[in-house]
Amino acid sequence: MNDTKTLREVFKQTTYQIAGHSKRDLHQLQQVLSRVDGNVEGDMYGTGELIENFQQKMAEYLGKESAVFFPSGTMAQQIALRIWCDEKGIKKVAYHPLCHLEIHEEDGLKELHQIEAVLLADKDRVIELDDVLGMDDDIACLLLELPQREIGGQLPAYEDLEAISRYCREKGIRLHLDGARLLEILPFYQKSADEVCALFDSVYISFYKGIGGIAGAILAGNEEFTKQSKVWKRRHGGDLISLYPYIVTAEYHFEQRKHKFSQYYEHAKELAGLYNQCQGISTRPAVPVSNMFHVHADLPKEELERILLSLSEETGIGFTHYVRQEDESSSSYEVSIGDRYAMIPKEELALAFEKLHQKIGEQKSKAE
Amino acid sequence: MNDTKTLREVFKQTTYQIAGHSKRDLHQLQQVLSRVDGNVEGDMYGTGELIENFQQKMAEYLGKESAVFFPSGTMAQQIALRIWCDEKGIKKVAYHPLCHLEIHEEDGLKELHQIEAVLLADKDRVIELDDVLGMDDDIACLLLELPQREIGGQLPAYEDLEAISRYCREKGIRLHLDGARLLEILPFYQKSADEVCALFDSVYISFYKGIGGIAGAILAGNEEFTKQSKVWKRRHGGDLISLYPYIVTAEYHFEQRKHKFSQYYEHAKELAGLYNQCQGISTRPAVPVSNMFHVHADLPKEELERILLSLSEETGIGFTHYVRQEDESSSSYEVSIGDRYAMIPKEELALAFEKLHQKIGEQKSKAE
Repeated sequence: MNDTKTLREVFKQTTYQIAGHSKRDLHQLQQVLSRVDGNVEGDMYGTGELIENFQQKMAEYLGKESAVFFPSGTMAQQIALRIWCDEKGIKKVAYHPLCHLEIHEEDGLKELHQIEAVLLADKDRVIELDDVLGMDDDIACLLLELPQREIGGQLPAYEDLEAISRYCREKGIRLHLDGARLLEILPFYQKSADEVCALFDSVYISFYKGIGGIAGAILAGNEEFTKQSKVWKRRHGGDLISLYPYIVTAEYHFEQRKHKFSQYYEHAKELAGLYNQCQGISTRPAVPVSNMFHVHADLPKEELERILLSLSEETGIGFTHYVRQEDESSSSYEVSIGDRYAMIPKEELALAFEKLHQKIGEQKSKAE
Repeated sequence: MNDTKTLREVFKQTTYQIAGHSKRDLHQLQQVLSRVDGNVEGDMYGTGELIENFQQKMAEYLGKESAVFFPSGTMAQQIALRIWCDEKGIKKVAYHPLCHLEIHEEDGLKELHQIEAVLLADKDRVIELDDVLGMDDDIACLLLELPQREIGGQLPAYEDLEAISRYCREKGIRLHLDGARLLEILPFYQKSADEVCALFDSVYISFYKGIGGIAGAILAGNEEFTKQSKVWKRRHGGDLISLYPYIVTAEYHFEQRKHKFSQYYEHAKELAGLYNQCQGISTRPAVPVSNMFHVHADLPKEELERILLSLSEETGIGFTHYVRQEDESSSSYEVSIGDRYAMIPKEELALAFEKLHQKIGEQKSKAE
């Protein structure tokens, strides 16, 4: 019986999916591994050509002296903040209320490092220059997440970033970039990675978001910073004997996709336009500034799920595999554009959105 | 010129190597990946059949309620000790002076968890019942490493283990097993994994030592313990979006090798016998109790290296890729037996050891 299937199950069986690059199954690793030279030696506890060359390449790409490969961004970022706190002798940092460290890491920063966090800005907007000017001086480091993922991937004006960077340098406050999605914002800013990173003392980027690797992260900064980060990496249990399965896939997908982020950005704007033509739906931001945005609907979670499920079965297009409840009468989900979007025939996509518009209309008139 | 080559370089070019399973190159992952079903879904933040089934399998093998896959033993063990310390409200544990946490983890236990360590026993012997009876009661957890790697892989008598376990239970002290090499000791004790683990409240095993995977570890204990360990895993930055490259290889090699540890143990005893027939050389322990032992030579590091290098070039057999200096007149290295040993023709091995005996004799008479 179709009506017992979940949205996730139906989504997986659709012919086309709107978001992402591909399935997260073992084919990905098989395919990448089949393309590499098996005689290459694995890395050993952070040493060996495989890891060192990749770290060097990423340091150059980010315009930093040095870079270290980490199994996760959670580990890399806690460590970055710890190093800057130790340097200043102050265990206090500032970041956005919806920062990854604040809401997704079980308070690791506080529990493992005893670092206090000052929350800047309101939950529903990005950190602006005024927030920074208004904060106490006694913080060791300010973390900016670009784009601010939990509010649909919003960005401050580039001039604001430059002014924040100047202010922090004047005040002796370190500036750290949560650049999990750094490549995703370069087309909007019309900057290179090293231009953006030059505003920051330390930078983290992720390999499994826009780049589409399996896992892993890079933390970059000056030599002294990255040297210390390796000591903390060992303390955290992240100095694995071998990280090469992640490094090999990170490098492969970085090379494969680094030039495609303008395309993802353009597609995100196009797709947000289709959503915003549907009644009862709006995207956040209204015009995306990266490859991502959030879809907000004036419908309860269950009703939106039911509509998307039947629509996916009817059209073969997967809109999303989940819907999140916002409140009793509204719901949302996140969209990040990758390789998949380009594979959907335009006319089929347009038709699916017409039907979405209709179905929501029918639902709304039923409810009235 | 041959004389500019290092021992490591010559070792890599030998036809046969005495220790280990195989090269740590990318072939290993390629071969395992080529044997798995690519349609299997990757794990997502600790969920999904791939990781859950493996954790369940390992919990059953170890005779524990529950098990969690970790990227590293460093992470798993700090977390185990932290949980037991929090349970008792005492931030103090006891372990051997050459415990991995004491000498290989940059003091992560102290720096991240503020846990104090009481060192039991002398550096050159294992922890015995008397050491445990003599320790203060105000510790939360005692960690035993079986076998004690840094002293050649020695073991206490099994009756001692049983008595230590009874004592800790009486006193309300948790007992944790650093079982990085648990499978390696089962043939000597003539016990199953779950029989040994029944003496302990929590157990860690490694997948890249005797089992020969790429990296990764299992931490097992009761439901409440492993539930808490997942929270700490996220805090440490170890809850990667996907750990499957390590899980798939861990499971493959576990199944491939779990029945071969008696063979490795027998080979280790045979090989130690060959070493102990050479003048100026002795193994520690004299008779191995696992697949590993240390080789000690009454020769300075440089002289032993020179002898082993020329011997490897002459015979095509790699004895070791490194030598460690003990003091001015003695040196050592570690040997862990895996699949490779069985591939060496017996007569060639015997001849190589005759030559080793001769060369050391020549060196010694030169020195006199």
